[in-house]
Amino acid sequence: MSRADELAEVLTRIVATRGLEQVSVREVAGAAGVSIGAVQHHFATKDEMLAFAFRHVVERTRTRISGLPVGRSPRRNLSRVLRQLLPLDEERRTECRVYVAFAARAALDPALAAIQRETQAQLLDGITATLREAKAAGLGAGRVPPLDPHADAKLLLAVVDGLTFDAVGEPDRLPPRQLTALLDRALKRLLG
Amino acid sequence: MSRADELAEVLTRIVATRGLEQVSVREVAGAAGVSIGAVQHHFATKDEMLAFAFRHVVERTRTRISGLPVGRSPRRNLSRVLRQLLPLDEERRTECRVYVAFAARAALDPALAAIQRETQAQLLDGITATLREAKAAGLGAGRVPPLDPHADAKLLLAVVDGLTFDAVGEPDRLPPRQLTALLDRALKRLLG
Repeated sequence: MSRADELAEVLTRIVATRGLEQVSVREVAGAAGVSIGAVQHHFATKDEMLAFAFRHVVERTRTRISGLPVGRSPRRNLSRVLRQLLPLDEERRTECRVYVAFAARAALDPALAAIQRETQAQLLDGITATLREAKAAGLGAGRVPPLDPHADAKLLLAVVDGLTFDAVGEPDRLPPRQLTALLDRALKRLLG
Repeated sequence: MSRADELAEVLTRIVATRGLEQVSVREVAGAAGVSIGAVQHHFATKDEMLAFAFRHVVERTRTRISGLPVGRSPRRNLSRVLRQLLPLDEERRTECRVYVAFAARAALDPALAAIQRETQAQLLDGITATLREAKAAGLGAGRVPPLDPHADAKLLLAVVDGLTFDAVGEPDRLPPRQLTALLDRALKRLLG
């Protein structure tokens, strides 16, 4: 892991435990045990540091997804991929808190918004492609309204983002078993 | 509107335009054109002020919902209520930005988390009750898995929160017409 990646890890831990508003070059330097100058060597500004860290978190999720096996059932493939986005264990809980904090800030920060847009676009492409396969295989036939890979991909991503958002705010109401049951409920209703 | 409510309005505008991390007693006093002491007269701490403002935003949404007509179609009733939670116009866009920012912070702030929990519980109760009526009226029969008012209420709330969350970060990808189309798609698939 590069030094910049290590600093991004330190930053995401601060976001997960104390919040995005606690992040500063000084805080990251202190938590990483390096000088302020060492952090500034990698990131000219706080905004640059935040954008790098957001990308770092997103990349970690993406790497995990790209390592997943791909089976023959589109529904099971989707379930496997989308579970990686839910706060089902300590690692993903931290990721999700950080993701929600960054996405909330993206409403006001064009650099973070661009990363958010790119990430969502890639996810949507992947989900849409799998739903197309599902449709070609005759799944979701007879649904009302019928399976529409493009629209239903947006809806599925909203389900996953909504479950994540709700669970980050209320972990007790939505424990891991509940999250996976609700995701699978949505997939079953869509694809049978 | 009480003076405290006016200060809450000022605070939510700061959150919507510049972000939650820009909020301070000093900033709110400045934007409201009053002294710091005048703000402190209403709120002993910044956290108290934030909790009041979060409740204020939530109350505004709730008031709007309680003023809605209730018709005979459970699906249309649900659609009418849930649209109030989506960023479909300038007022709701501001509310949604503020809601997402507060909910993100709720992960680390027990007072905000309590408000979030109470709000979500009330919404879930309302959605669950309407889905029970729908089930009693024979709607959603023959769905696989069959309509389960409790589980499907959680899923619907996740759809709405997810659409809101996604649209706050990417307003261009999810304009109002798209948001209502996706919501109605989810309702139609659930209830026919």
